Amino acid sequence: MAGKNMIIAQSGGPSSAINASIAGAIARAMASDKIDKVFGAINGMQGFLDRKIIDISDQMRTSEDFELLIHTPAQALGSSRYKLPKDSVETYEQILAILKAYNIGYFFYNGGNDSMDTVSRLAAFFKERGEDIIAVGIPKTIDNDLVETDHTPGFGSAARYVAASIAEVYLDTIVYPIPAVTIVEVMGRNAGWLTAASALARKNGSAPHLIYLPEVAFKPDDFIKKVRSLLETEKHIVIAVSEGIRTEDGAYLADTGAAEDMFGHKTLGGVATVLESMIKESIKIEKLKTRAIQFSTLQRAAAHMASDTDLKESYECGYRAVEAALEGSTDVMITIQRTSDEPYLTYFAASPLAGIANKEKKIPLEWITKDGDDVTDEMVRYLKPLVRGAATEKMVDGLPVFFKFDRTKLVDPTAL
Amino acid sequence: MAGKNMIIAQSGGPSSAINASIAGAIARAMASDKIDKVFGAINGMQGFLDRKIIDISDQMRTSEDFELLIHTPAQALGSSRYKLPKDSVETYEQILAILKAYNIGYFFYNGGNDSMDTVSRLAAFFKERGEDIIAVGIPKTIDNDLVETDHTPGFGSAARYVAASIAEVYLDTIVYPIPAVTIVEVMGRNAGWLTAASALARKNGSAPHLIYLPEVAFKPDDFIKKVRSLLETEKHIVIAVSEGIRTEDGAYLADTGAAEDMFGHKTLGGVATVLESMIKESIKIEKLKTRAIQFSTLQRAAAHMASDTDLKESYECGYRAVEAALEGSTDVMITIQRTSDEPYLTYFAASPLAGIANKEKKIPLEWITKDGDDVTDEMVRYLKPLVRGAATEKMVDGLPVFFKFDRTKLVDPTAL
Repeated sequence: MAGKNMIIAQSGGPSSAINASIAGAIARAMASDKIDKVFGAINGMQGFLDRKIIDISDQMRTSEDFELLIHTPAQALGSSRYKLPKDSVETYEQILAILKAYNIGYFFYNGGNDSMDTVSRLAAFFKERGEDIIAVGIPKTIDNDLVETDHTPGFGSAARYVAASIAEVYLDTIVYPIPAVTIVEVMGRNAGWLTAASALARKNGSAPHLIYLPEVAFKPDDFIKKVRSLLETEKHIVIAVSEGIRTEDGAYLADTGAAEDMFGHKTLGGVATVLESMIKESIKIEKLKTRAIQFSTLQRAAAHMASDTDLKESYECGYRAVEAALEGSTDVMITIQRTSDEPYLTYFAASPLAGIANKEKKIPLEWITKDGDDVTDEMVRYLKPLVRGAATEKMVDGLPVFFKFDRTKLVDPTAL
Repeated sequence: MAGKNMIIAQSGGPSSAINASIAGAIARAMASDKIDKVFGAINGMQGFLDRKIIDISDQMRTSEDFELLIHTPAQALGSSRYKLPKDSVETYEQILAILKAYNIGYFFYNGGNDSMDTVSRLAAFFKERGEDIIAVGIPKTIDNDLVETDHTPGFGSAARYVAASIAEVYLDTIVYPIPAVTIVEVMGRNAGWLTAASALARKNGSAPHLIYLPEVAFKPDDFIKKVRSLLETEKHIVIAVSEGIRTEDGAYLADTGAAEDMFGHKTLGGVATVLESMIKESIKIEKLKTRAIQFSTLQRAAAHMASDTDLKESYECGYRAVEAALEGSTDVMITIQRTSDEPYLTYFAASPLAGIANKEKKIPLEWITKDGDDVTDEMVRYLKPLVRGAATEKMVDGLPVFFKFDRTKLVDPTAL
């Protein structure tokens, strides 16, 4: 056996770009003679603990496999909501035992905040035990809320989907001569980056007319006043709203809109529905049409609108993570460092996880307008390069073809 | 003046392909020396009656204008919900007076069922009055419910969006190891063609597992039984449902799901939400995750997923409509006639409106499975060629650029 094996796992919510990162990591690993086999854990740490481990080197055989994997949305290795118990030495011992059983010397985890905490804790544990096992994080989240990195893989593709879709929804809205307010709900519980990306839609018109972000307290009265005033000059209003906006008392606005379903159960309609109800209640204009749209899981899974810039950077983050590991770095995450917006110039770094894990990057308040219902030009300059380029996925008969790992062929460690 | 002028107007709901039809009509008209100016009415018949008429020949100057218009979703000329009063001679007189004032000899209307009725009535009126004015219909509807034509422009693009998006939603669903039922609501009040197109997603997995169409009465008990049984073997179920499904007593299922919003108003959550409530109420499986997704206006406006086949055919329908008019045909609509699925072979015809107006083409029952919750292979063979090819819209910085008519420059008929 030439060297140690490596393992990679995915975590957190899906994105169109996360598989590009594992493709990059796998490609770099397969080109190295220090790394023997490339393993993948199915369904993150949960699957790892259940020894649901497949041999990726065995399943990625052609350049086409790599191409397909790069353009396949969501997690090809699956994810999990499992959180590593922070103080359970037994769990860490169990992880170490599995890594040893599979002769694994390199551990890569592809995810967001929580996942980076896991990587950091594992790295500290391996060090404490004097084990020569490297742990490196690969960033991923459509929320763009990781610190130390200019932005996160996955964000650009989701941003491109949001911006293009809002431009299209606006064109749909303006076809009728009646006044209309359309509210589009975008993901982002605490950070409004993805909702802010709706501003890029403005190259095709004035939509969105208002942008509400979780970074600023939502004031219902100001909102109604603003919409009413806009309707005096514009017939068709589009509003982009982050799912996580809160009122001044800190309550999620979505939680105030509970309705009862046909069986009498409380249901949450989402924040767009709450804003729609407010408008219907307060603005009485003849024939006013209101519509609430949720982009739902499409904004994170719509590989057909992936940003080429994003996919390339995601691939590179995976590739560089393995490279950093091969150079002996551990307890780090690959970060993207921007030196210029236009031309868009970046370099990659391996940044210590200590400064990253469990931290959350929100939109700087100076990138939000005074009224709290729009973003500044600086935000637009930041966003613009991230959605650039249309990723070209493989299509057969007009429909995309996706990569799929065989999750049933598990590695038998005794046969290694 | 070389000849008569022509006018074109758009009607009904938006689609990604309707502008390709007017692009084709404009291109053919501009190449003819029989037609002098090409006018467009803003907001359909309503705008026409208000003399909101622009000079298109003046605004379409370059090949790039045509390319942009072809790939711009929704109606570039606007639409309206206005219905021509059927027996109002005054309205027809008024229309005739406007046509004469603008020296118009050719009238083209781009829309669905209702619009074709308008065209037919106008043609009959012109004939009755001995007026030498030609009226030709150009089909358009994502519902695919016009008779005499194999399918309608706009349908293929919406079908491609639905199929690709369901494939992506499915990949998003399967990342977690917990059981999940995702219900996707697709447009189609009386005809289920667009919902049926979800079957094309199956090239990337088993989703959708169930397809519910308005052509078959929905039986809640059978539905719950089916979902429960599927969950015994599959962890992740995706259901495609047409917004217009009805129970055996003829009531729209969506209407049974009225909930109360925060102000105590009744709201309709859509049929996907009703099915979600039914599952939550009847299927008690630990950690079962349910999600209702509405594709909303994106399915008809998402030009970024337009089918190349659809855009080319839509263009051709507009082009041929003008050609038919130049040859003297009136009271006709351009239809697409298919002679073979594979290879996909078609020809265009000008079919009399008498057999088309006010008729509705539903899915033949033999293309729906016996259980009423899926479509047959014959349906898939029919659908497959319609979504073929990815339309390539112009992108700048990763985002589409759309065409826009200047709607403020109205034609002064006294200056003609």
